[in-house]
Amino acid sequence: MVSSVDVNGTSVFSPSGDHLGHIAHLMIDKASGQIGYAVMAFGGFLGLGQDETPVPWRKLRFDTNLGGYVTDITRDQLSNAPKPPANWSESHEWRKQSYDYYGQGYYW
Amino acid sequence: MVSSVDVNGTSVFSPSGDHLGHIAHLMIDKASGQIGYAVMAFGGFLGLGQDETPVPWRKLRFDTNLGGYVTDITRDQLSNAPKPPANWSESHEWRKQSYDYYGQGYYW
Repeated sequence: MVSSVDVNGTSVFSPSGDHLGHIAHLMIDKASGQIGYAVMAFGGFLGLGQDETPVPWRKLRFDTNLGGYVTDITRDQLSNAPKPPANWSESHEWRKQSYDYYGQGYYW
Repeated sequence: MVSSVDVNGTSVFSPSGDHLGHIAHLMIDKASGQIGYAVMAFGGFLGLGQDETPVPWRKLRFDTNLGGYVTDITRDQLSNAPKPPANWSESHEWRKQSYDYYGQGYYW
C-alpha cells in the first residue's frame, strides 16, 4: 500500500519518461472507498500558470525506477480535457464522461 | 467525493460524540485503488504521547453535523489493537487480522 501523504506531490511521467506534471491530491469515492480521480497539476512554467485536471486513478501506475507514476495520458489530452463543472466531484454523469474521454473502464 | 487533503487531520468521534482522535493519513491499496486503512492518531495529552494505528476505512462514516468521522470503534479497541509488524502495509495476513479484530468485512 501507499500513503495518501506520499502520493500528493508525486511526479507523473509519460511512458518515455517525459515529466507531465504531478499529483496534487486524490478524490475519494465516499460510498465505495475507491479512489475516483487523481487531480493532476500540469503545464505552466516554473510553477506559474499551472492547470489542474482530474484523471482516472487507474490510468496511473507507480514506477519504482522513476520514483513517480507513469501514464499513457498525453499532454494534449490533459490540455484538451473537458473542463469540470462546479459539481464535478459529485456528478456521476461527469465521471462517466471523464472516464470515457480517457478510455478508462469504470470501477463502479 | 472527498479530497485526500481534506481527510487528513479530520477528527474522529464515537457515536455519542466523544472525540477519539483524528485521521493522520490514508493507506491506499495500489492494485485495487481502494482505501485499505485510515491511520488514526489517538490518545496522548496536548499532542504529546499520541499513538497511531491503522483502522479499516469502512469503519468510518462522515457526519456533516460533527464535521468529522464517526466510528463504533472504541478507545479500548484502539489502545488494545494488535501492533502492526514492520511490513504491515504490504501484509495480506495482517490486513485480515486487523479487519477481523475490528469485525469489519473484507473489501478484497
